[in-house]
Amino acid sequence: MSRWQPDARGRLERAALELYIERGFDQTTVAEIAERAGLTERTFFRHFADKREVLFGGAVILRDLFVTAVEQAPDGAAPIEAVAAALQASTPLFEERWDNVLRRQRVVVANPELQERELVKLATLASATADALRRRGVPDPAASLTAEAGIAVFKIAFERWIEEGGERKLSEMFRESLDELRTVTAAR
Amino acid sequence: MSRWQPDARGRLERAALELYIERGFDQTTVAEIAERAGLTERTFFRHFADKREVLFGGAVILRDLFVTAVEQAPDGAAPIEAVAAALQASTPLFEERWDNVLRRQRVVVANPELQERELVKLATLASATADALRRRGVPDPAASLTAEAGIAVFKIAFERWIEEGGERKLSEMFRESLDELRTVTAAR
Repeated sequence: MSRWQPDARGRLERAALELYIERGFDQTTVAEIAERAGLTERTFFRHFADKREVLFGGAVILRDLFVTAVEQAPDGAAPIEAVAAALQASTPLFEERWDNVLRRQRVVVANPELQERELVKLATLASATADALRRRGVPDPAASLTAEAGIAVFKIAFERWIEEGGERKLSEMFRESLDELRTVTAAR
Repeated sequence: MSRWQPDARGRLERAALELYIERGFDQTTVAEIAERAGLTERTFFRHFADKREVLFGGAVILRDLFVTAVEQAPDGAAPIEAVAAALQASTPLFEERWDNVLRRQRVVVANPELQERELVKLATLASATADALRRRGVPDPAASLTAEAGIAVFKIAFERWIEEGGERKLSEMFRESLDELRTVTAAR
């Protein structure tokens, strides 16, 4: 086996997701993932700290992407517009890898501990987004509330996108959910 | 020691919270809590399943209270009004026991595992609230988004209430945060 493996990370991720679905996350070992991918455990650990990172390694990328999008929104943009830009900026992350996104969701939904980890991920994302808004000069509680609203839209639209089998564009669903949130909060 | 202990539950809760702050949650045993309260371990377990339930036993009460308030909101009430009613209905739970609420918050904030449990509690609250809205005939995604918006308001206003030392009424802070959420989502 040559030392350099083309797309080792992608192969390991695919193998891991397949095994997590077939056997369950807890029952799968790193050795089995490496074997299924035709790679060594050592290669696995060059790409992932542990088998959970296969599922949550993307969280840091997502957070950086949100923070950058909020920071780079035009000066005059309202806080919610900056958050809307972050949502839009994140869509290629998911749309370009639909099969893996779908598999990952199945694995997370089937395991309470992973669901908790997902909640922590979203809370961290909300908190980083609120910080980025504060750096734009948005005061509290507007900064926290706008960030929480954005994460609520992310969560609900994303779940619907998966439920509907990814038939519509995620960007469209983010936009729609944000409009819906505007409508529901405005009603009295 | 007589078998009947006046306010055994309250004494156990107070003793537990004191010890969690003094020694840390992980370092405190049920035996120590019982001793501090001047009661037996057996009495502790008549009131709480384990030492974590001292902190999270209220979650079920809060959830039932939210669900009932949403279900009993007037027929013509908009979904967000039903959720606002749930927020208002919950305030006595916290305002009448400020000292314990404050201690509990200190314990949870100091322990990552308890913070995760708190996120799970809020997610469960959001999901039960969305279900109650659906039973009122609110379709999705409006039901989920309204519930998430309500929980965001709950979280942010509650944190601010604690930060400000409970000086203002929690009911007023819920109202203010909901208005603020309306304002931030409406902006473009």
